[in-house]
Amino acid sequence: MRGKQLYEGKAKVLFEGPEAGTLIQYFKDDATAFNNQKKGTITGKGILNNCISEYIMLRLAELGIPTHFIKRLDEREQLIKSVEIVPLEVVVRNVAAGSICKNLGLVEGTPLSESLVEFCYKKDELGDPLISRDHAVVLGWATQDEIEDILHYTHRINDFLRGLFFGIGVRLVDFKIEFGRLQDDLGTMIVLADEISPDSCRLWDVKTNEKMDKDRFRRDLGAVEEAYIEIARRLGVLPESFAEKNPA
Amino acid sequence: MRGKQLYEGKAKVLFEGPEAGTLIQYFKDDATAFNNQKKGTITGKGILNNCISEYIMLRLAELGIPTHFIKRLDEREQLIKSVEIVPLEVVVRNVAAGSICKNLGLVEGTPLSESLVEFCYKKDELGDPLISRDHAVVLGWATQDEIEDILHYTHRINDFLRGLFFGIGVRLVDFKIEFGRLQDDLGTMIVLADEISPDSCRLWDVKTNEKMDKDRFRRDLGAVEEAYIEIARRLGVLPESFAEKNPA
Repeated sequence: MRGKQLYEGKAKVLFEGPEAGTLIQYFKDDATAFNNQKKGTITGKGILNNCISEYIMLRLAELGIPTHFIKRLDEREQLIKSVEIVPLEVVVRNVAAGSICKNLGLVEGTPLSESLVEFCYKKDELGDPLISRDHAVVLGWATQDEIEDILHYTHRINDFLRGLFFGIGVRLVDFKIEFGRLQDDLGTMIVLADEISPDSCRLWDVKTNEKMDKDRFRRDLGAVEEAYIEIARRLGVLPESFAEKNPA
Repeated sequence: MRGKQLYEGKAKVLFEGPEAGTLIQYFKDDATAFNNQKKGTITGKGILNNCISEYIMLRLAELGIPTHFIKRLDEREQLIKSVEIVPLEVVVRNVAAGSICKNLGLVEGTPLSESLVEFCYKKDELGDPLISRDHAVVLGWATQDEIEDILHYTHRINDFLRGLFFGIGVRLVDFKIEFGRLQDDLGTMIVLADEISPDSCRLWDVKTNEKMDKDRFRRDLGAVEEAYIEIARRLGVLPESFAEKNPA
């Protein structure tokens, strides 16, 4: 079904899809951190993230949140709608961790009084710098209406994901999402794009505070694959091949 | 009149004032740049900034914008109201220059489609990082109401200053201001604090685009004192001692 390769990112490859307006999103095992300064492989990550992201995108669609997701095709591929990516990384923080601790002098693990939505300008060469929503509008990266839609969906996604993860004994510390512009007969609409997976979330076990996400790779904590497997298992989407090799 | 020294900053010193609730703000000739990595002296700067800031604070008060300024006492001192400084550097950009060019890949001199208000967390050790207004509220540095007041005053100050500077043939590229909390019988109110001077503004000659502000010091452009003198002269506040030594 795959057409020609259109784009290779750090963790995924995009190919032309079988019909106009569709793409195939291929999940790699490659992992990068610190703006590409650290590189490695997490065996099986692509397969796991494909399943985890499929599951989450489907649940969000049931809530009425529009997404680019159409269906999973096989172990590493999913069919998605072709969208124009809004060049913003939207970060939601429920607990202080990662860059906000370094930049603002906060202690990792400090709960935030309210969920904080951050916008970063998606530009690797500039290190994805933090901006305000005013920058995005004034510099033409999104319209005011698009920002409103993005904020509305982002808060709903956060509420749902916090619930979903609490349900499986995991604290959603923070996550990063991206949105795209989908063209159809009725005009242009904002939809959730990219993926939601342990690559793009900080997930801490509620009881032990153990990290169950890409921070295990970033910080060389070991048992990286096992963390991704455990998230998939708790969500009920662990592929059989993994379940056999990794009994609970 | 000066009481004991309370605080020494990079360009000013604060002393206890003659009455409760007042301070004396003393303007030094010291200049720093790049978060204190570059240090130097601009002879006479303190005297000029004292006059320039006095003039601007008085004009803004006439517009109904509350400020900490009471009166100028002498060459280098002014009497101000004691306020609790809100730990935010409020930056207004009309034209791209300085850090926004470096951080977001913009070309210096590009006009912005709308004036952009940036908030930085005022913390030298962290390099005064850019934040959003949500960070300020969630992390407790200002309340939502205070941010609204600050934004309202900031836009009015920008409109007025753009007019004032255009009137003297100068383009107001950007500027940084700070606000404080003033306690009185009626409660706490937000007032403009600190100073407004060529230390805190980027000012370009409308005809020649020549820089007339601290960038001359930052970038070793020479004729630094002369730029401050010229701004004071055009505003009509150049002290006689300077006027004699520096004929127009």
